[in-house]
Amino acid sequence: MKRFIQIKDLQSALHLQPNPVKIGLVPTMGYLHEGHLSLVKRAKKMCDLVVMSIFVNPLQFGANEDLDRYPRDLERDARLAEEAGVDFLFHPTGEEMYPEPIVTQVEVSGGITEQLCGASRPGHFTGVATVVSKLFHIVRPDCAFFGLKDAQQVAVIQQMVKDLNFPITIVPCDIIREPDGLAMSSRNIYLSEEERKQALILSQSLFETKQKLQSDLFQSADQVNQFLRQRIESQPLAEIDYVETLSYPRLEPVSDLKQQPILVAVAVRFGTTRLIDNILFDNGSV
Amino acid sequence: MKRFIQIKDLQSALHLQPNPVKIGLVPTMGYLHEGHLSLVKRAKKMCDLVVMSIFVNPLQFGANEDLDRYPRDLERDARLAEEAGVDFLFHPTGEEMYPEPIVTQVEVSGGITEQLCGASRPGHFTGVATVVSKLFHIVRPDCAFFGLKDAQQVAVIQQMVKDLNFPITIVPCDIIREPDGLAMSSRNIYLSEEERKQALILSQSLFETKQKLQSDLFQSADQVNQFLRQRIESQPLAEIDYVETLSYPRLEPVSDLKQQPILVAVAVRFGTTRLIDNILFDNGSV
Repeated sequence: MKRFIQIKDLQSALHLQPNPVKIGLVPTMGYLHEGHLSLVKRAKKMCDLVVMSIFVNPLQFGANEDLDRYPRDLERDARLAEEAGVDFLFHPTGEEMYPEPIVTQVEVSGGITEQLCGASRPGHFTGVATVVSKLFHIVRPDCAFFGLKDAQQVAVIQQMVKDLNFPITIVPCDIIREPDGLAMSSRNIYLSEEERKQALILSQSLFETKQKLQSDLFQSADQVNQFLRQRIESQPLAEIDYVETLSYPRLEPVSDLKQQPILVAVAVRFGTTRLIDNILFDNGSV
Repeated sequence: MKRFIQIKDLQSALHLQPNPVKIGLVPTMGYLHEGHLSLVKRAKKMCDLVVMSIFVNPLQFGANEDLDRYPRDLERDARLAEEAGVDFLFHPTGEEMYPEPIVTQVEVSGGITEQLCGASRPGHFTGVATVVSKLFHIVRPDCAFFGLKDAQQVAVIQQMVKDLNFPITIVPCDIIREPDGLAMSSRNIYLSEEERKQALILSQSLFETKQKLQSDLFQSADQVNQFLRQRIESQPLAEIDYVETLSYPRLEPVSDLKQQPILVAVAVRFGTTRLIDNILFDNGSV
């Protein structure tokens, strides 16, 4: 595995590749877990050369968010990336990505960014779309791989790619979970033992929701949300940010649960840690 | 010359090119004149394959602007493009470029878009940056050619390319003028005979300004602007939109005329027609 900090070095190495080479990009913020590595696995199946980026993008963090304490361990990440078969690891500095204050933004507007995390984290998806545009231009991948834990992020990126004609296939990849169901996240290490235990309510209640949806036991999106809220509030440390049932990928209100795919998404704080999880429900299967 | 209306047909033809081929893009809104053709000439010198796009982009026109009456003559344009040596002519429909309402925008903020035409035409440069991003992704050129009559547009595109790491070299090209000095513009055909005559004041007064700058006869940007205003107002049909002397390409106020390059830019209405012109003054030469 080759490592690159500077954009021009990465680009020189990419230019030296035989033509045509199919390039897969796995953009991450590092502190890798099985979720990230599943993206690499998928990328290796579909592409000749896998580039992983590791960059904790300040643009997508709000003023009161966890940019400073976001977990970082580059050497461990590099080891895991190499073991997983990453060919090129790109871990630029902030200075390299933003040598001067950036004045250009890529903004996806409308319900797709106003709902869910867009409502809780204003500016977040503009930061995401902007840095992903930069990475797409730097790496020029054929395919880019994103995890569906951030289902809204996938929807935003797909919208951006369609609207701006990026010549890139976005490959959404399934959520990877701990054996007990907790969705993998770099932020899970923030959780105390008790918070970690109570956080299981997210996947548990989402799985219950899935079964009830499959059995046609809900009449409306409101009923789905009410059920989930009640189940999540059973845990005293859980503070709900949102519980929403929306169309996917447009993230519009759902008037008929039979009009699928449907995204059931939750964001819940445990102490100072905000976790998200979701299920995508499509034609009876998840 | 091959002509393309559909994005996928153009992309297929581009994919069939031998590798590596250096691609030059000349984005236009059609109704070609010598200014556009000079961009093609420059592109042919620097690149192996020249793609010209013709698209009157509704996104960059304000509600009360001249989108509907903007001049169009595709068959004449195709003939001129072919004669000039364009290899691929891409003239998509509005439906092809915007199959559904676009919700993604590329926005360059700050003084660079707030000054000059950005002040007179809110949203204009977001429309420009967005459609140019689309064209860059569709064509994937190595170089793109823009005329300096729209000096602010060149500055905005260069800022966008830098901020978002587009792997594209922007080549600014000199203003091409009629024998009597009037800057070439597709909008010149709007002018009545009398307006056309009075419009010469733009290039005349800018050339006078250039000489005075070279002779060090101005103390300040204000003096430059005052001189130009007086000269332009000598023509009864001239209605000034702006007269500005700014740093280039940042378009910031100029406190010292020796800090160059300096852009002296004017926008003036003659009847219903709004014309722009400018001089770029750098180290004593223009």
